[in-house]
Amino acid sequence: MPRVDAGLFTHLVEKAFDRAGLAMESRRHVVAAMVETSLRGVDSHGIQLFPHYMRALKAGRINARPAIQVERSRPSSVLIEADHAFGHHAGSFAIERCGELARDTGVGLAAVRNSTHFGAAAYFALQAARDGNLGFAFTNADALVRAANSSSPVFGTNPICMTAPMEGEEPFCLDMATSRVSWNKVLIHRRAKEPLPAGWAADAAGRPTSDSEAASMLEPIGDYKGFGLGMMVEILCGVLSGGPFARDILPMYRAPIEVRRSISHFFAVIRIDSFAEPATFRRRLSDLAQSIRSIEPAPGSPQVMVPGDPEKAQYAQRLRHGIPVDSAKWEELITVEPALEESVLK
Amino acid sequence: MPRVDAGLFTHLVEKAFDRAGLAMESRRHVVAAMVETSLRGVDSHGIQLFPHYMRALKAGRINARPAIQVERSRPSSVLIEADHAFGHHAGSFAIERCGELARDTGVGLAAVRNSTHFGAAAYFALQAARDGNLGFAFTNADALVRAANSSSPVFGTNPICMTAPMEGEEPFCLDMATSRVSWNKVLIHRRAKEPLPAGWAADAAGRPTSDSEAASMLEPIGDYKGFGLGMMVEILCGVLSGGPFARDILPMYRAPIEVRRSISHFFAVIRIDSFAEPATFRRRLSDLAQSIRSIEPAPGSPQVMVPGDPEKAQYAQRLRHGIPVDSAKWEELITVEPALEESVLK
Repeated sequence: MPRVDAGLFTHLVEKAFDRAGLAMESRRHVVAAMVETSLRGVDSHGIQLFPHYMRALKAGRINARPAIQVERSRPSSVLIEADHAFGHHAGSFAIERCGELARDTGVGLAAVRNSTHFGAAAYFALQAARDGNLGFAFTNADALVRAANSSSPVFGTNPICMTAPMEGEEPFCLDMATSRVSWNKVLIHRRAKEPLPAGWAADAAGRPTSDSEAASMLEPIGDYKGFGLGMMVEILCGVLSGGPFARDILPMYRAPIEVRRSISHFFAVIRIDSFAEPATFRRRLSDLAQSIRSIEPAPGSPQVMVPGDPEKAQYAQRLRHGIPVDSAKWEELITVEPALEESVLK
Repeated sequence: MPRVDAGLFTHLVEKAFDRAGLAMESRRHVVAAMVETSLRGVDSHGIQLFPHYMRALKAGRINARPAIQVERSRPSSVLIEADHAFGHHAGSFAIERCGELARDTGVGLAAVRNSTHFGAAAYFALQAARDGNLGFAFTNADALVRAANSSSPVFGTNPICMTAPMEGEEPFCLDMATSRVSWNKVLIHRRAKEPLPAGWAADAAGRPTSDSEAASMLEPIGDYKGFGLGMMVEILCGVLSGGPFARDILPMYRAPIEVRRSISHFFAVIRIDSFAEPATFRRRLSDLAQSIRSIEPAPGSPQVMVPGDPEKAQYAQRLRHGIPVDSAKWEELITVEPALEESVLK
């Protein structure tokens, strides 16, 4: 399995996007987000998306020269028209506006419409946490998660992401889909011809299934609770922003590549100093995290961790030893951009 | 099973709290919250808590004459010292401040510390939605939910509540604990000597168990995801407000009744008109809800509903036919306040 150097990969992909005519700010954010996400170990949302993004850019689904604009603003909120920009660019624009609003009022919110796939929500919320704030990021996605009791999916994996600064380490970061697992995990079981664990997926009639071939949709976490959280995210994203929502959102891969999807996102930044002394907050949160990490695991369970811990460990490891890319994905990457061969660590 | 008239019960309990010296604003909110919560069918957080609340009030855990105060304020946020008031009063004070801030800036946030049990989170978030806004309410609670992989509970059932106004019906209302089920459901199985469904609870060593006698803590929804959501709620509540958090919070029943628990809450109100035309938003949300309700159920499943639907049905039913109270709870209620006999429907 090739291992890729994060710095070299960044440089080469930036150049490829530059040749494709992508605006500098879009380029910067989509590449930084992909690489950071892969370094954090979240392969499904990292550099392996480069071929898809390049195709979507060339086909016009993603706008190479977007005019991202604030359409409505109040002292603590903005509504943003993303003009079909890379979601990574639109989201970074939005979380930055949230930070500016929060400086003045204590909090900033942004609803974004007419955007595209934004990668991992953590990329945005972590920007807020590195500035010393609480960050939140949400996005809608095409219908894939079964509505409680129903025979069909309504909401996407609609993630919830929250970050908070900690003392002496990278921020706390919860970034989770509201489905039990990702569709990618179902596909991995399908390829390996392995049965699915209970609670992961349902067949086309909405019946729980352990047959990876029959799996047609994902199950939400906690049944109607995860479904409710998915609806909460959709209200904040599609319903509030004025964009399409739920079953009106086109699928990322199965829709024609030139068709625009009009994804919606929602972001929030909260200033900690509105409520607490920031240093005290960071220390208290670190103390809480340490107390959790020191709990005895249940019999047969691995080490107890807090959200973000696995990603912090991966980051340190991959920054030194490179980002592993599976062979099939690697073939796809170098087909789109042969120069990427140069980023492989010997 | 006696059925209680909501209006008469309200009147009689208000009188009982009045005689106990409880301040008018506290009285009004705790009684309205208990009755509304029971009407919505959420018995665990409704009128059956009256005996506990009266004992806690008389013992001094709950302050009969609280001086609730804003300790820090910014244009979109307040930090509130609740002075050990009824949580229902502190929370209503907080969500009202949030609404005022949101009128000026688009959003209002409130962190509340030194409060007490606030009942159902929906009571507060629904106030915001009835004013035409999005409402959010969160609270911490004593450790009861197992941390992922661990042998012990860290966070409470730390609920997430979100509301939004709809066209032609009561607001959307998601109000859910981040545990798979409530402890009350475990107790019901224990009394009936029935095994627990998989994924509900763990024994004292943190091992999953179906033995209702051995159950010692609850499991979070979606394993590490629900645990992460519980931590998100605790960061917003205890960590941000400066109050105690996680395993430092005393249990509601097992701690001496005179001891103050210093519960923390967090609230948010978002003005819809910061992002969308309110009428358009309400119509789009109602359309989404109708499209969900019209989905064919999975084989063997009941009707497909959206969050809040079961409670709306109960409300209509119980307003007309009274609130049913189980016999053991009823004995407790009339022991504390014999006059409540008058509220029973013949």
